[in-house]
Amino acid sequence: MIWHRPIAVEFNHCDPAGIVFYPRYFEMTNSVIENFFADVIDYPYARITMEERHGVPTVHIEADFRAPARLGDRLDFALEIRRLGRSSVAFHLAATARDILRMEATLTLAWISPAGRAAPWPDTIRSRLAAFMETDA
Amino acid sequence: MIWHRPIAVEFNHCDPAGIVFYPRYFEMTNSVIENFFADVIDYPYARITMEERHGVPTVHIEADFRAPARLGDRLDFALEIRRLGRSSVAFHLAATARDILRMEATLTLAWISPAGRAAPWPDTIRSRLAAFMETDA
Amino acid sequence: MIWHRPIAVEFNHCDPAGIVFYPRYFEMTNSVIENFFADVIDYPYARITMEERHGVPTVHIEADFRAPARLGDRLDFALEIRRLGRSSVAFHLAATARDILRMEATLTLAWISPAGRAAPWPDTIRSRLAAFMETDA
Amino acid sequence: MIWHRPIAVEFNHCDPAGIVFYPRYFEMTNSVIENFFADVIDYPYARITMEERHGVPTVHIEADFRAPARLGDRLDFALEIRRLGRSSVAFHLAATARDILRMEATLTLAWISPAGRAAPWPDTIRSRLAAFMETDA
Repeated sequence: MIWHRPIAVEFNHCDPAGIVFYPRYFEMTNSVIENFFADVIDYPYARITMEERHGVPTVHIEADFRAPARLGDRLDFALEIRRLGRSSVAFHLAATARDILRMEATLTLAWISPAGRAAPWPDTIRSRLAAFMETDA
Repeated sequence: MIWHRPIAVEFNHCDPAGIVFYPRYFEMTNSVIENFFADVIDYPYARITMEERHGVPTVHIEADFRAPARLGDRLDFALEIRRLGRSSVAFHLAATARDILRMEATLTLAWISPAGRAAPWPDTIRSRLAAFMETDA
Repeated sequence: MIWHRPIAVEFNHCDPAGIVFYPRYFEMTNSVIENFFADVIDYPYARITMEERHGVPTVHIEADFRAPARLGDRLDFALEIRRLGRSSVAFHLAATARDILRMEATLTLAWISPAGRAAPWPDTIRSRLAAFMETDA
Repeated sequence: MIWHRPIAVEFNHCDPAGIVFYPRYFEMTNSVIENFFADVIDYPYARITMEERHGVPTVHIEADFRAPARLGDRLDFALEIRRLGRSSVAFHLAATARDILRMEATLTLAWISPAGRAAPWPDTIRSRLAAFMETDA
């Protein structure tokens, strides 16, 4: 199963070369995963972090910047779950514009207790992540 | 005439108090005006800056932060033109969430030549800005 | 009394025109005032916000962007207190590079209780802000 | 040889959990490498990008976030060159605060011609990068 989310490349994202500056790509990857939790897992970050005082920090990233994206490009982010662990999940994101892969990244997130320790996923979230993985596109 | 554009408050926008950090509000105001130029004036920033080497820098800002906006809020930005000058334009933006005004700002932008000097608006852009001002909501 | 703090214009701050993007200027103004509270008032934001659960949100801004600053410029930020109120303070910041004023801004901050309401300055902070105002340069 | 550069964790870097938000770490890694090019290689980004129209985009990143860093922490970034290729260089950065490793990352940058293609390092830059690698600490 692949979930898609578009992000337009705006002035804010671009560096003096007129292309997306890589820290802005990570603002985008965070936004894509945040919206995935809100829209697909139905468990928004506001609930996780502000109401329930848990966290889903990113603990590992591998990223490849394949081709520059420019001001005015519309990036399509395609999200897949690559691995679901006891207290972690690995997302693969691929960002395409004008049919060319611009960047891809694997981001591993951990479920963290209010005390700041890795903890097993709550059943609700775990079952929804698992269901997403098993859905046919 | 008022033009509206929504922006969801995401993790990226929020500070350790869980509310929108004011520099992120200015990323939002820039995005709102950028999208206004693309969607309403039909003259996107990519054309202005990358193709034609002009600019529309912001030269003056007055902003009031009336009430905090929180992670998960959906801000509605309402844009009006307050003044259209020979080589400048003043936009008023008001951002509301849950029926409460969160911030409002007046931003004055100038039309800049490739040499970096204030220059009169091109007729196309000027007439579209004027038409927007005169439209009944 | 004027307090100075330098900030180098780095890649991160610059837009596709190679000049400082205005939301980045507000990251700078926040940093300057944050360092003023840490170094001059001896009351760092970590203590105010994380330990004591108060806040010093910015409630009003007036800013003028006088001349562009470019990648590699060294901005000198000159900070003055313009007004000290019961629960607010107005800072004036002027950023100069290569002897030319690039931007100046007046930012009004309020002292906020853990409940999120404006509250009178604690005596310690108020007396140090007042002492700074009365110091001869 | 290891080169060190400190970065204070400021309000701007922190998320609603009061810890450094990972996209801000990449603003920091970019700043560290940018300052390394300016101070050690004596070839600042302003010269590379604005004057000579080349680029040093980041093409690959691996990053591990080992422990959270908090508002008020002083991160020490330790930079090493791990590999120097014909048109690329891999930097390893380790960020430590209060004697605990907070994050480390390997970033591979490529030398890019004005036409946007990978090109061999200019001799000046290549020899300085090589000299840095061979220096005893």
